[in-house]
Amino acid sequence: MSKLSQFIQEAIASIRPVRRDFHTRAKVALNQLTKPVGSLGRLEELAAQYVAITQEIPPGMPEPVVLTLAADHGVAREGVSAYPSSVTVQMVMNFLNGGAAINVLAKQVGAQVRVVDMGVESDLGNLPGLLDHKIGLGTNNFVEGPAMSHEQALQSIEVGIRLARDAYADGLRVIGIGEMGIGNTTSSSAIAAVMTAQSVAKVTGKGTGVDDERFAKKVQIVERGIKRNQPNAKDPVDVLAKVGGFEIGGLVGLILGGAACRIPVVLDGFITGAAMTLARALVADCHGYVIPSHCSAESGHRCVLEHLGLQPLLDLDLRLGEGTGACLAIGLLKAGIACLRDMATFDSAGVDGAEAVLPEPV
Amino acid sequence: MSKLSQFIQEAIASIRPVRRDFHTRAKVALNQLTKPVGSLGRLEELAAQYVAITQEIPPGMPEPVVLTLAADHGVAREGVSAYPSSVTVQMVMNFLNGGAAINVLAKQVGAQVRVVDMGVESDLGNLPGLLDHKIGLGTNNFVEGPAMSHEQALQSIEVGIRLARDAYADGLRVIGIGEMGIGNTTSSSAIAAVMTAQSVAKVTGKGTGVDDERFAKKVQIVERGIKRNQPNAKDPVDVLAKVGGFEIGGLVGLILGGAACRIPVVLDGFITGAAMTLARALVADCHGYVIPSHCSAESGHRCVLEHLGLQPLLDLDLRLGEGTGACLAIGLLKAGIACLRDMATFDSAGVDGAEAVLPEPV
Repeated sequence: MSKLSQFIQEAIASIRPVRRDFHTRAKVALNQLTKPVGSLGRLEELAAQYVAITQEIPPGMPEPVVLTLAADHGVAREGVSAYPSSVTVQMVMNFLNGGAAINVLAKQVGAQVRVVDMGVESDLGNLPGLLDHKIGLGTNNFVEGPAMSHEQALQSIEVGIRLARDAYADGLRVIGIGEMGIGNTTSSSAIAAVMTAQSVAKVTGKGTGVDDERFAKKVQIVERGIKRNQPNAKDPVDVLAKVGGFEIGGLVGLILGGAACRIPVVLDGFITGAAMTLARALVADCHGYVIPSHCSAESGHRCVLEHLGLQPLLDLDLRLGEGTGACLAIGLLKAGIACLRDMATFDSAGVDGAEAVLPEPV
Repeated sequence: MSKLSQFIQEAIASIRPVRRDFHTRAKVALNQLTKPVGSLGRLEELAAQYVAITQEIPPGMPEPVVLTLAADHGVAREGVSAYPSSVTVQMVMNFLNGGAAINVLAKQVGAQVRVVDMGVESDLGNLPGLLDHKIGLGTNNFVEGPAMSHEQALQSIEVGIRLARDAYADGLRVIGIGEMGIGNTTSSSAIAAVMTAQSVAKVTGKGTGVDDERFAKKVQIVERGIKRNQPNAKDPVDVLAKVGGFEIGGLVGLILGGAACRIPVVLDGFITGAAMTLARALVADCHGYVIPSHCSAESGHRCVLEHLGLQPLLDLDLRLGEGTGACLAIGLLKAGIACLRDMATFDSAGVDGAEAVLPEPV
């Protein structure tokens, strides 16, 4: 594996496996509540995972944040998207003005939205509300060479780690991750193909909605990019640098930073899944801190989730990104935590049938 | 079909198919929003269904209510449940005290909870907050004869229709339906077997969690009840009277009443699905007013949903009832409506790519 910065090494070293004993304590507490054992299904599992991550029982009701990381992709110049690159910056403005899906859905689950410029193609100046961590004016076109330097790849991960720490310092206890970047499903397909060892065709989808012809071209472009750069699957930073994106590096850092701060990181769609393949290759123990949200309509996402051993909570044909699926999953996580915190026990409510409450095998 | 009361006949006669033209208008509006066409998947479909039901565009953000209907079942005396019948009334108290899962989950999505005594075995007197529509002190044991009289079956449906109208009159615009009743998965299996023409074994599950031995007994009991009573699948009121329950009749009425008032009715688990098989047999046009929520871990629920042609939104291994799954689906419905109401359009946000916005085939 290529050299990591000391900052990243320290973050990785601070990540511990989630606490199985706290998971068990949460399950025991859930089994006292006025419902048949296990009858809240995956909501109970979410609550127990939250406790295993935070080591807090009963848990506080977390205040969530969604971080939407934006950057441009040189490969978009190959015409792999239905939209022009100009849309990236326009959507950033839309996020800041509160008009995008992520703004609306985050509000529904009481989550803040933080919008981060990781490398949008234009100079945005000092836009109110925008977190400026621009690493470059978009990546290079990976068909012609590496998308970014090794140094920039490390820098993008470091930004993500810092963003997670800032969120933690601000009292936020769930991080949803999202992205915006015209061309970034193309980049993610390249990452997914390398990291899951599946064919490019299998992990490539239609992104924001390209037609069949453009789709065939997209597969070719990804294949050419991989052939040209020869990313090393054993070296996630190499993969990120050669075929990734600035926002994808930021997502990797958010996952590492969330795990290091012991708060859950809720994935979104295909691009965040591709970032997770890189994060997990850097440190396997981040797995327990990650909550999958949905399985996107973007083909390739299912491959990535299977590779990661993550079972999505939702399957609603979403394919938007931004963190929209993460918001919906945050709603479910909060629901599970609320049940654990606020439901009465058989004892406190005077409900019979504790004898029917057999502990589940843990 | 056996005779319906005039009240029920009038309610049924007032149910119209949902408005396809409003559905189309909602889709057109969704396609103007700053996202790739259709990229919010089933959230968009929920928003469009809401508009098709309410004929309101842009739609108001609905205030939801969950109605949790409780009743006891004579068949519980056969030992088909892991819990004693006493739990029904104890859980009613728990609902009224706010300690049950339904209270916690309804709060998460901003829904009121209305608790209704449709026929709990004990006399509850005047409990504050309880809506008293008791039809009897539990049903008869359907192994020995009809669970209730034809008159009681009609009465239970009428109560449900009135409850839906009351909710509408109070300004509530989404009805989640739920139930509590020890023994009611047994009753629902009998209904499901008759209405879907599947074998009893296929539509019977483990309810709140019985062991294998009790499960085998449960299947036998349902088979005996059907053999003894010979419910007529062409006559939903006959099926309700012979093997149903007072709360199940109430659920049928809520579906009819919601459709008559042009507000969506969000199903919960297996028992509400069984009620929907009866409602749809009474009036096919109620279909468009119904939103499925989840596919329960209770086997038989999937059969029922397939029979109904409803694709569940969630699959989270829930098997609690009360309306808990309905709450989670209400959260998704509100999310879809919020996107339609509150997102910026390509025009208003100055985002390029309207040319990429090809209308979906409607």
